[in-house]
Amino acid sequence: VLAFDQLAAEGYITARSGSGTFVTPDLPDGRPHSDAGSGRWRARRPAIAGRGRELAASPATIVKIDGPPRAFRIGTPALDRFPVHVWSTLVARRLRSATRGALDYAPGVGIAPLRNAIAAHVSRARGTLCSPDQVVVVAGAQHGLHLICQLLLDPGDRAWMEDPGYPGARAAMAAAGAEISAVPVDGEGLGIDRHRQRTPRLIYVTPSHQFPLGVTMSLARRLSLLAFARDADAWIVEDDYDSEFRYGARPSPSLHGLDPDGRVIYVGSFSKTLFPALRLGYLILPLDLVEAFRIARRATDIHTPVLEQAVVAEFMAEGHYERHLRRMRVEYRARRDALVQAVRRHCDGALSLREVTTGLHALADLTETEAERVSGDAFARGVEAMPLSAYRHGRRAVTESLVLGFGAIRPELVEAGIQTLAETIEGLTGRARRGAADRRAAARRADRRR
Amino acid sequence: VLAFDQLAAEGYITARSGSGTFVTPDLPDGRPHSDAGSGRWRARRPAIAGRGRELAASPATIVKIDGPPRAFRIGTPALDRFPVHVWSTLVARRLRSATRGALDYAPGVGIAPLRNAIAAHVSRARGTLCSPDQVVVVAGAQHGLHLICQLLLDPGDRAWMEDPGYPGARAAMAAAGAEISAVPVDGEGLGIDRHRQRTPRLIYVTPSHQFPLGVTMSLARRLSLLAFARDADAWIVEDDYDSEFRYGARPSPSLHGLDPDGRVIYVGSFSKTLFPALRLGYLILPLDLVEAFRIARRATDIHTPVLEQAVVAEFMAEGHYERHLRRMRVEYRARRDALVQAVRRHCDGALSLREVTTGLHALADLTETEAERVSGDAFARGVEAMPLSAYRHGRRAVTESLVLGFGAIRPELVEAGIQTLAETIEGLTGRARRGAADRRAAARRADRRR
Repeated sequence: VLAFDQLAAEGYITARSGSGTFVTPDLPDGRPHSDAGSGRWRARRPAIAGRGRELAASPATIVKIDGPPRAFRIGTPALDRFPVHVWSTLVARRLRSATRGALDYAPGVGIAPLRNAIAAHVSRARGTLCSPDQVVVVAGAQHGLHLICQLLLDPGDRAWMEDPGYPGARAAMAAAGAEISAVPVDGEGLGIDRHRQRTPRLIYVTPSHQFPLGVTMSLARRLSLLAFARDADAWIVEDDYDSEFRYGARPSPSLHGLDPDGRVIYVGSFSKTLFPALRLGYLILPLDLVEAFRIARRATDIHTPVLEQAVVAEFMAEGHYERHLRRMRVEYRARRDALVQAVRRHCDGALSLREVTTGLHALADLTETEAERVSGDAFARGVEAMPLSAYRHGRRAVTESLVLGFGAIRPELVEAGIQTLAETIEGLTGRARRGAADRRAAARRADRRR
Repeated sequence: VLAFDQLAAEGYITARSGSGTFVTPDLPDGRPHSDAGSGRWRARRPAIAGRGRELAASPATIVKIDGPPRAFRIGTPALDRFPVHVWSTLVARRLRSATRGALDYAPGVGIAPLRNAIAAHVSRARGTLCSPDQVVVVAGAQHGLHLICQLLLDPGDRAWMEDPGYPGARAAMAAAGAEISAVPVDGEGLGIDRHRQRTPRLIYVTPSHQFPLGVTMSLARRLSLLAFARDADAWIVEDDYDSEFRYGARPSPSLHGLDPDGRVIYVGSFSKTLFPALRLGYLILPLDLVEAFRIARRATDIHTPVLEQAVVAEFMAEGHYERHLRRMRVEYRARRDALVQAVRRHCDGALSLREVTTGLHALADLTETEAERVSGDAFARGVEAMPLSAYRHGRRAVTESLVLGFGAIRPELVEAGIQTLAETIEGLTGRARRGAADRRAAARRADRRR
């Protein structure tokens, strides 16, 4: 009887009063499909939407997800130096002490202890004043950029992007349907050209440590940028992705701290200062934008997981965060020094490093070979060396530079990586010389025949 | 000298060769602003974008974030019965055993052990076949719906929404710029009207347990829906938010299992089966859509935190998940029974419950009073009782029903909640009777005066 009830409940059989129970006439022939992806039905389905195609074209250079970090992976911090023991202790304590309420939905802007800790840290370390009410916790900087573009840009709006620049910012703008202007970066940061035809609604910058060129935006440029944005009536997005690691002078204060208008939105991330798998970052917003972001989370992802938020709040409140940053500054300086020395020892003028005073990557200029060919050959030998052109809009400019991450690479492995890179360059230069010699020889032979 | 270097690096002073060091002339007057939100600069900034205003208008009914669950909170499961101890043990074990690689970026579609566990569970429990390659892990069902709408709908595309229905699905469609048709739900589920002027590109349904009406979509309706979607060339989104909890017959198999075309996208959530603070859910996609979703994550949030994914994977692989679901079915049935008995005991015909065979909420029809007034008065007395109209498109229909969640409410608290609700209804009915009596008396007085 139970089986019959179930079949009837699911509609496979139908009871007709007075005549009995019958199998439902219009059942499908086949069994549940298992041939999804077989391709034969594709033509009968709607296509993916235009915005979907845009999103599905997001460049791979946004993030490297490809096994353990090798020399010279960009974007990954020193995972081998993360204090896993302290972290685990805090997680265990949190799980013991949290009430059942911690399992329930939480505020879209983040839990209060984390917002407090972030506001205190940013006010102390980044030369600006912000209250916990201005903090919105997000699932990493990329999520923050995506939300900003979704909320502040309409399709067709103009957005200024640094060129070269962080592909994730460009992808977030593109997903929002913005028209992107690639604005060249010079020695002082993003160049401001008041004569561009259309003024922007949003300007994305990395003033503390331009990605990937490594330039710090000068004070004069910061002030002109703020003045320009005021005249253009534009938002400024300040992505402060790795300013905590500065080797020499103190970190330069944030652009946010100079903003008198509440038009700078500050984007912070824990991916470099703690670890990427955490997926945690934050925005510092003008107060009157917070409500819009809070509500927008409802329709997008409701909120960020609570456990990570609570543990990071404790990690910060108990001083572990500051301590970890101090230790990592020393560690990263050692990794940078190892890179500088290895290049000096092995590259012999074929590769010259620009000065690195901040962050986790270096720019290396090639003198005789094309960066894209070096990058390709080095990758085949197990070394990651991104050509600068990968970060240029439309990859139009010919560049002779490589972007080398050193944050994730232990000092003792830096040397081997640079040796491989030097051999790669040598191989290409040798081939290039042989190639040039061959061409000259061919020309001579042709001359003789004439 | 260090202080001077820092000031020079930040641009506050300028060294002129041969003449000395000078304060930079065009420094801003004020100190870093702390008056964000003071309002005086608002007029000089760009407005929030149109899509941003749409997102910021997402209804509060998507999720209740308002202190501990009270009778009769909707959407929250029995947090008091979650096996926190087992969970904590798995978290601790994971933190001890994971390699450093677990701190790094992870695949956008989710980690392999979780995708495997989800595919196995869905194939076993939901009457469909799916491979791990079809699974995309998301940050909860709402995030899944948002991604689906962003990828599959362009502005102006038509989307069909159940009416009444889940406000979160409507908000995700609205955020994508879709034109939403509110399609009435009848006793068999979403009604299919082939004569509507514009065919949809996407149809959202909750076939196992319609939210909020509680109807299970009949097999006949499922087959017509699939046939209609094929003719219309539309996607179907199957939100299976609480089908695991069925009290009587086994859960009816998913719509996904009947789909021969690969046009049904299945949305699953751990918010009800585990807990909401986890922010974890999943999509079962046709294989050829997986790559687009994988890449789209890069531009939106990269991936979901790894720790939660790993722990849920273990929780499932070791059988804790099935065990928890079995226990909770018993528990929720007891809570449902408590609700049924309390209504029978205290409401005396003023409130009648529709039959509840699935899920964590019940529909209660009022016979004499308006649901919105009951809801308002009950809220003032500490009882949450959503009027059905809150889930209707445009709230146009007058409804006399309440939606009562019972999942989060311990059986012993259900009775007190229903008593309060009964008193509320009585108060309104009494007032209504007194009001009618007053009007009749006034009419008699007016008659006498004439």
